[in-house]
Amino acid sequence: MIFLTELESQFYSKFSELKSASGSHSPSIHQLIRSFPNVKIDIDACYLCNPYAFDLFMDYFVNADIEKYIRFYPALNSEIAKNLSVFTGIPSEKILVGNGAIELISSLFSQFKKKKILMVLPAFSAYQELAEDDNIIIPYYLTKEYDFKLNVDDYLTLLLYHKPDVILIINPNNPTGTLIKRNDLIRIHTELTPSQLLIVDESFIHFTAEEESIELYATDFNNIIIIRSLSKDFGIAGVRIGYAVMPENYIVNLQKTGYLWNSNGFAQFFSELLTKTEFQRKYAISRLLYHQSKNDFFVALSELPRYKVYPSEGNFFLIETMEDPSFVFTKLLFEFGIYCRLLSDKVGLKGNFIRIASKNQSDNHKIILALKSIANF
Amino acid sequence: MIFLTELESQFYSKFSELKSASGSHSPSIHQLIRSFPNVKIDIDACYLCNPYAFDLFMDYFVNADIEKYIRFYPALNSEIAKNLSVFTGIPSEKILVGNGAIELISSLFSQFKKKKILMVLPAFSAYQELAEDDNIIIPYYLTKEYDFKLNVDDYLTLLLYHKPDVILIINPNNPTGTLIKRNDLIRIHTELTPSQLLIVDESFIHFTAEEESIELYATDFNNIIIIRSLSKDFGIAGVRIGYAVMPENYIVNLQKTGYLWNSNGFAQFFSELLTKTEFQRKYAISRLLYHQSKNDFFVALSELPRYKVYPSEGNFFLIETMEDPSFVFTKLLFEFGIYCRLLSDKVGLKGNFIRIASKNQSDNHKIILALKSIANF
Repeated sequence: MIFLTELESQFYSKFSELKSASGSHSPSIHQLIRSFPNVKIDIDACYLCNPYAFDLFMDYFVNADIEKYIRFYPALNSEIAKNLSVFTGIPSEKILVGNGAIELISSLFSQFKKKKILMVLPAFSAYQELAEDDNIIIPYYLTKEYDFKLNVDDYLTLLLYHKPDVILIINPNNPTGTLIKRNDLIRIHTELTPSQLLIVDESFIHFTAEEESIELYATDFNNIIIIRSLSKDFGIAGVRIGYAVMPENYIVNLQKTGYLWNSNGFAQFFSELLTKTEFQRKYAISRLLYHQSKNDFFVALSELPRYKVYPSEGNFFLIETMEDPSFVFTKLLFEFGIYCRLLSDKVGLKGNFIRIASKNQSDNHKIILALKSIANF
Repeated sequence: MIFLTELESQFYSKFSELKSASGSHSPSIHQLIRSFPNVKIDIDACYLCNPYAFDLFMDYFVNADIEKYIRFYPALNSEIAKNLSVFTGIPSEKILVGNGAIELISSLFSQFKKKKILMVLPAFSAYQELAEDDNIIIPYYLTKEYDFKLNVDDYLTLLLYHKPDVILIINPNNPTGTLIKRNDLIRIHTELTPSQLLIVDESFIHFTAEEESIELYATDFNNIIIIRSLSKDFGIAGVRIGYAVMPENYIVNLQKTGYLWNSNGFAQFFSELLTKTEFQRKYAISRLLYHQSKNDFFVALSELPRYKVYPSEGNFFLIETMEDPSFVFTKLLFEFGIYCRLLSDKVGLKGNFIRIASKNQSDNHKIILALKSIANF
């Protein structure tokens, strides 16, 4: 049994206030630093990114002639889509570039009114909030009993019974890290009528063991939209770039609401990097490095007593704690400067859970030592 | 009389194709460079910015610890609004931060359906395109005969007769550079009923001889919106940041469509600079330097034969050419590497006009020499 000290309790109660002011999201690292100037945050394991890819980006960034990307208006959306097309192999007419994936998600969902939306829960909170607004949510719950895995037959039964207008799947899912295999996803799509829209958020797809993306498959249909953040894979959340693969009529429609000039100069610079063979090759190496680091982290987490870690195809792990998770969270942050995601507010997830992002080998090692130390309190 | 060489004619016809593909905007410098790799562009006098302020920004940028602005999610809209509040003196609850002013303009206008919009023409093309979409435009034309000045009495007559829902004014206006004095604008506002909405775009307000902004005045009313790009004043178009001063109900409404996380890390960095007294002081100096340079440019332009320059409270000059303006445009670009704005497609502007941005002293001097040389062909 672990207990919080007086100071830790005060800290947690102040953090809780900050958290409830942030809605269903975690307070950002900026807010945290401002609110707790005395707490030294060493590792942000709430933030989901590949740190090796971030280092790679910074290598190019510091050596680039960045002035022109600051001085001039950035290229138009369609120009940046051409760069993403080189990287993804998707025709550029089917790509809409977002000022972060969240812009695409928000404007897409703002078009849904009185729709039936089939949604897997627990999920990324923004989807749930946007979907709830003036629509009917049909939830499919991932449960602990089934290791948070989606059962395709059960899911299809629900789908065929409710006939939703929109089918939303985050794959791999956040915060569970569970994956619907490519073939199963295609099977689900095959059951849809042309008027049912399948939205798949593949923001974590670069972290799976096998290639599982259906984005190329999607381009052959008029009822699939793929959403893709690029900040997770490349660790560059501040740059704000994501994209959607969409049927062209959706793109034309959304462009009317202001997608012409929505990328900044740094996003343009990044999109140009993506077209370079050398950068692509180095990025592939950073993926391998990160994958290795994540696998090692999983093994080490699995060996910890008093924590149960679930396998993950994302770049984070869902961890069940034997103790009150807010205690573990507080000790991690207050004693070790490690910021993780406390999941007590996550809709559709009951129990003692935290989510910890996989970082580089050295940070992961520090996290393991901290968790061990907390369990031995 | 000037003529184009064979090569220049070919160049202009290729440029015209590029231009018509860009809609009502000028091709960006990026598109231009890509389409004409052999034309060396020395001065972008199409792009409207204070280059002294750009140099100031770059001084801070290269010496800053930029990594954290790239790595982490940027601060929320409301946090960045607090920084802009320090700079402007406007309460932060009345500020909505945009991913460039264009984002604010687009989403604001996407809410107008079947509205009567009173609009001063010629104007920034984006407004005209957005306003036209499913609304009725009542135009007030600025004419050469009156040096493109707005006559407040005539304007009010039109306003009181048509009773528009929305009154849109760009002040100073682009491309004419003409200003409605603060007192006249307040007089216009006083004639409105509470249900009539006044939108004033003050993106060029930092270039006027006197302080003419009504943004503080606006905060006392529920029917004024001020739109403000920051890329002109600070010369940082690639950073994408602008803001609107709005009644709070408009902000709440727009925030639903996705304004939570719309700023990038560099925009956040810039907003933090704006709160620093030292930066503010240096920026004030850059404004003075630019103002001086613009005044000198006007004097030199006025002395040129075969061009008529109109006084401007913006940071650009509307210039009437005795020759075909497309010839002047082509010679400027092809022979001198100076890119200006050809206005032959500008709705509400008839005649031979180009628009030339004021740059620093040295660039302005080169532009004067080029115009002189062209007139003597």
